[in-house]
Amino acid sequence: MATGRNDPERRDRIIGAALDLIAESGVAGTSHRKVAARAGVPLGSMTYHFASREELLREAFSRFAQGISKVFEEYLDSATTPAEARKAVADLVHRLSDASRRELVLTHELYTLAARQPAYRQLTRAWMQRSRTSLERHFDPATARQLDALIEGLSIHRALDTEPHTRKLTLEAVRRLTS
Amino acid sequence: MATGRNDPERRDRIIGAALDLIAESGVAGTSHRKVAARAGVPLGSMTYHFASREELLREAFSRFAQGISKVFEEYLDSATTPAEARKAVADLVHRLSDASRRELVLTHELYTLAARQPAYRQLTRAWMQRSRTSLERHFDPATARQLDALIEGLSIHRALDTEPHTRKLTLEAVRRLTS
Repeated sequence: MATGRNDPERRDRIIGAALDLIAESGVAGTSHRKVAARAGVPLGSMTYHFASREELLREAFSRFAQGISKVFEEYLDSATTPAEARKAVADLVHRLSDASRRELVLTHELYTLAARQPAYRQLTRAWMQRSRTSLERHFDPATARQLDALIEGLSIHRALDTEPHTRKLTLEAVRRLTS
Repeated sequence: MATGRNDPERRDRIIGAALDLIAESGVAGTSHRKVAARAGVPLGSMTYHFASREELLREAFSRFAQGISKVFEEYLDSATTPAEARKAVADLVHRLSDASRRELVLTHELYTLAARQPAYRQLTRAWMQRSRTSLERHFDPATARQLDALIEGLSIHRALDTEPHTRKLTLEAVRRLTS
């Protein structure tokens, strides 16, 4: 049976299948066997690319966090003035809170893992560092850190509210924190 | 077999056992049968108090959110000046982010459920409303809403960071948002 040793796309496909399964039925329901079936690869290929279920989960969430970091960078990198940077942050909050159910679920599945297992905090830490670096293009490090937390809180609250707050409120909060 | 119809403590014990199990092994692993065993009640008692697993989960998370709301109120109600209210908010952020693993996990398990099932957003909405009402003792409604999001973000980031930020940074963020 082919194990796809020379097929880098296969590794990506396994990671994508793992994220799909986690989004659908949670970390608990995501086994090597189910991911292999979803990705359409033999079980031997799974164990070649990922020594354990733990390694696969870690890699999948790391890939997911990198994807959101890229969104952060896209929004922040295009701003050239402080006013544009504030607008970009507000747009980012609304982009994150209007995200697909898949993206929302994966974010909270990762936070639940990190709440349970301190080992995952290396991953959430690295994610936060990268977000703060994006924000530091426009703001000092302490402000960037405060702003990163504000973006987190506003995004979660908008996503989990039945009557989400307006963009005007988001922009006012960003303005207050950065002035 | 006794079903505990006249035993209100039994209902509380079932809810407590459900929360313990969710904290330990997640929502997915929490069945009526396992909760009954953990609470030391017959299965008939479970179905008397909760028509379905869904109803038990909803009630358990509602109870959990009420507990955190009480913490919010304790911190906010004791402040009598704007400066004291800001200090109380900073203390609250550190209380929430230094919480037990159980409390952190339950918060994120609830958010994951709400990300997956819009029905749970009634519950997260009610929780946010109650927090904002506490904050409105000291701040106008728009500020209270922004501050509630900042508390959320700062608490999550402190809890999931390997090098949590200082109280000074928390207090500065609160000051900026409320001045």
